[in-house]
Amino acid sequence: MTIATLLVSCPDRTGLVAAMSDFVFRHNGNIIDLDQHSDPDSGMFFMRLVFDTAQFRLDRDGIQAAVTVMGRSYDLTSELTFSDHRPRVAVFCTKVPHCLYDLLLAQRLGDLAGDIVVVASNHRELEPVARHFEIPFVHLPVGADKAAAEAEQIAMLARERIDLTVLARYMQVLSPDFVRSRVGRIINIHHSFLPAFVGAKPYHQAKERGVKLIGATAQLDHGPIIEQAVARVSHRDTVEDLIRKGRELERQTLTRAVRLHLERRVLINGNRTVVFA
Amino acid sequence: MTIATLLVSCPDRTGLVAAMSDFVFRHNGNIIDLDQHSDPDSGMFFMRLVFDTAQFRLDRDGIQAAVTVMGRSYDLTSELTFSDHRPRVAVFCTKVPHCLYDLLLAQRLGDLAGDIVVVASNHRELEPVARHFEIPFVHLPVGADKAAAEAEQIAMLARERIDLTVLARYMQVLSPDFVRSRVGRIINIHHSFLPAFVGAKPYHQAKERGVKLIGATAQLDHGPIIEQAVARVSHRDTVEDLIRKGRELERQTLTRAVRLHLERRVLINGNRTVVFA
Amino acid sequence: MTIATLLVSCPDRTGLVAAMSDFVFRHNGNIIDLDQHSDPDSGMFFMRLVFDTAQFRLDRDGIQAAVTVMGRSYDLTSELTFSDHRPRVAVFCTKVPHCLYDLLLAQRLGDLAGDIVVVASNHRELEPVARHFEIPFVHLPVGADKAAAEAEQIAMLARERIDLTVLARYMQVLSPDFVRSRVGRIINIHHSFLPAFVGAKPYHQAKERGVKLIGATAQLDHGPIIEQAVARVSHRDTVEDLIRKGRELERQTLTRAVRLHLERRVLINGNRTVVFA
Amino acid sequence: MTIATLLVSCPDRTGLVAAMSDFVFRHNGNIIDLDQHSDPDSGMFFMRLVFDTAQFRLDRDGIQAAVTVMGRSYDLTSELTFSDHRPRVAVFCTKVPHCLYDLLLAQRLGDLAGDIVVVASNHRELEPVARHFEIPFVHLPVGADKAAAEAEQIAMLARERIDLTVLARYMQVLSPDFVRSRVGRIINIHHSFLPAFVGAKPYHQAKERGVKLIGATAQLDHGPIIEQAVARVSHRDTVEDLIRKGRELERQTLTRAVRLHLERRVLINGNRTVVFA
Repeated sequence: MTIATLLVSCPDRTGLVAAMSDFVFRHNGNIIDLDQHSDPDSGMFFMRLVFDTAQFRLDRDGIQAAVTVMGRSYDLTSELTFSDHRPRVAVFCTKVPHCLYDLLLAQRLGDLAGDIVVVASNHRELEPVARHFEIPFVHLPVGADKAAAEAEQIAMLARERIDLTVLARYMQVLSPDFVRSRVGRIINIHHSFLPAFVGAKPYHQAKERGVKLIGATAQLDHGPIIEQAVARVSHRDTVEDLIRKGRELERQTLTRAVRLHLERRVLINGNRTVVFA
Repeated sequence: MTIATLLVSCPDRTGLVAAMSDFVFRHNGNIIDLDQHSDPDSGMFFMRLVFDTAQFRLDRDGIQAAVTVMGRSYDLTSELTFSDHRPRVAVFCTKVPHCLYDLLLAQRLGDLAGDIVVVASNHRELEPVARHFEIPFVHLPVGADKAAAEAEQIAMLARERIDLTVLARYMQVLSPDFVRSRVGRIINIHHSFLPAFVGAKPYHQAKERGVKLIGATAQLDHGPIIEQAVARVSHRDTVEDLIRKGRELERQTLTRAVRLHLERRVLINGNRTVVFA
Repeated sequence: MTIATLLVSCPDRTGLVAAMSDFVFRHNGNIIDLDQHSDPDSGMFFMRLVFDTAQFRLDRDGIQAAVTVMGRSYDLTSELTFSDHRPRVAVFCTKVPHCLYDLLLAQRLGDLAGDIVVVASNHRELEPVARHFEIPFVHLPVGADKAAAEAEQIAMLARERIDLTVLARYMQVLSPDFVRSRVGRIINIHHSFLPAFVGAKPYHQAKERGVKLIGATAQLDHGPIIEQAVARVSHRDTVEDLIRKGRELERQTLTRAVRLHLERRVLINGNRTVVFA
Repeated sequence: MTIATLLVSCPDRTGLVAAMSDFVFRHNGNIIDLDQHSDPDSGMFFMRLVFDTAQFRLDRDGIQAAVTVMGRSYDLTSELTFSDHRPRVAVFCTKVPHCLYDLLLAQRLGDLAGDIVVVASNHRELEPVARHFEIPFVHLPVGADKAAAEAEQIAMLARERIDLTVLARYMQVLSPDFVRSRVGRIINIHHSFLPAFVGAKPYHQAKERGVKLIGATAQLDHGPIIEQAVARVSHRDTVEDLIRKGRELERQTLTRAVRLHLERRVLINGNRTVVFA
């Protein structure tokens, strides 16, 4: 059974749900899940429509063509995917292993609607982890010439036809060029509850400020927040304790964001996300 | 502007969303919110459809008639309400005031899509609280003849045309007759994370068992769970500390459940709820 | 039975716990609770020692004198209090009632180791709330001459011999002079998880930034954080929803911070707190 | 630098803290951490005293002898350990890998004050995981003769001088004999918030009952609760979703309990624990 997922965003108007649910019904599809949101601030409408295409009266090209036609009528930005196309994921990491283990284990347990096809790092420390999970490892050192290193990274992503790059505590700052020229989307984990503690060493900042909660934030393309989580800390916790507690938050938050994105539950609304969880 | 909310449950089949969203669209309504759920276990479909009726081509009787017709085609159990009809709520309490304050304050702050029209108690301790919030107070003592007391309670609920009775830590056990003969629905708060610690004195039981979390549970008609919350406790917490921490949970959980119910977000699926939050 | 609570902070060295616990033992006291913390960063030692003085061989002046002597030997900053002296608390508010209700109800339920003796406001809206709880209400309007208004506030605090001023969503900025010239301590609630969203309208900022968690922060003397809490939000939540969810956080966090402070559980370590919870 | 940790439980009486802190001070030790608890219900006193022995005037045998002498005076149950003795840990597992990965990664990251020296299983599926972390793997199949299998397990634990056996979702019921004859302690993870859903398939039970929170519970020797955690679920979550969300809880809760135990923070108070976290 093949499942289609249609993500839609457009200026809000009446009849959008009716038009799209009717389209599925008339062609003998079956709606499995439908979630929608009207944002009064931006005047935008967002929808996620999941339907079974087993007996659909149109083939994929036909569905795509019909969506394109509807798109013109309603000024839609849309994205149509089918469950047998699994997005290809690259994970970038450096030396800290917890997020990488979490993602690879999630994949092994069947929790991700996509495939991690490559692990890339500017160091070799985590090569055995990739190897253990039988995922190809690529060593992409970053030296003095950062532009050259980025060009290599981008070439690798293109070669591997990557849909999503996950920065799993990858300790290199990517240039705006990288983000713009990217192949596919980027999800990164920042180890604070943004917008608090934006810069380097957020756990040190948190200790210094004496907060009673620490957090982690997963972002899409270094901007909109997909997911956040926090944990309680006290005066007893050293910076090392914060780092340990933070690892739990980082890996959970990152893996959850990746899972939500791969299930096509994340839409962009300006600098924010709509997450149909 | 009048908003209509249609709650629907029926055996799952194709075309349900299309039929109902099309009904709204054809009559010039505007869908404000739509949430739906197919339960694979029970084979049931649930939907909450909220639409603006300002320019609707049918009046209320016409909408109700159309819903009845659709109901026959699709074997629907449905409930249609309009935002200018505010459910009438009775709050039953005994001597502990925290849940009563929370509900009355929520009402004053405009958080509830209904009106608390009466506070009833088997004691007089909380009469000043009702008076402070300018809500009528009814003293309904419960003596040896429990059946007579219940008859009086039921008569009062009928007289006040109550849609929802909230048991805000009301310390009397209601007979099954009461629950059956009720006017409208009942929401109660149990001071444990059900199904743990079902009986009396759950905080004492929790202390005895040495749990590291305590909880509270709001139920509909003494059965399906609407909402639960927990708080962390430690060996340092005495039973009195558990009671204090539990108060926070009880009032939050109860008020939240009442709010969700009054916004028509709670549907029943056997002995469980579907909560479109 | 009278309980003594001794709070101590001093440069860390060996023998501190032994000296102080031995002092209690030798004078026939009984340690009820002891909590201590050595902060490796600042090199400071903090202790909270609670002991029963029923059979103590020294009277209060004697205990205080002994503490003063120990203070000289060990370079202690100390604070000695007895359970029959209840701190006097003033609550400042404006128009939003939820924090005020929460504090007054906590007092009525016996949750606070102090007495709210006055409610002060620059408006009259919440006078009935104070009256309902039988606490004197003082109307202190703030006009064009802010300095004069502050002088009146400070005079009132002095006249009432206030130990703790609680700003329960008091919507006026206090001058640094006020904070310095204060009678006793100040606890305020900020409606964000500091250091995020420091300025005005934090819920609007939170909505704008698209965070997935909102928070509240209770501070001592507008600086060190005593307590923080967060709640989950989504794209569905409007600013009004954030404000409603935030009210829960604000009142819980503020009341908890006040309770902890009144139980003498909060010590200051530079711009941070040590909270012996 | 060697750190000594003294755990003590005894009938409560005055002078206990003074006696023990004085003992450390007189012998030129330095108290690093001290936590104590008097349980009014059982009349018992519990203490965890951590001190630096670098300049201690007694050697280990001397300290142990002194503790034994104090033990007689005060009717103490005590346990004295030194930081250079690392407890030896065996992990039992079956086929589900998440708890095993979490424990082994925690060990690699230096989060555990002990050493996992063997992974044992009644199946071979997780052998590569142990191998990847370079921990010996022992295959101990359980056939029809359960008593023989248990005898083999017990022999292995004795041979490996195991202090703590961790049941990381080990899917075999241990006999009461095993628990009694154990070498060292046992920590297991139950996949519900006990005492709810005690028996088999707790996630199925949770789905059936319609709870809004699921949980996990780590127990010591199959009795007292060390740690619990919960996660929010909704009507949308299938049993498979509960299992996925539950994995997060299970591994966090189990690893945290193991960490707390290995740091000597867990004491037993009847069928409950005192956890000096």
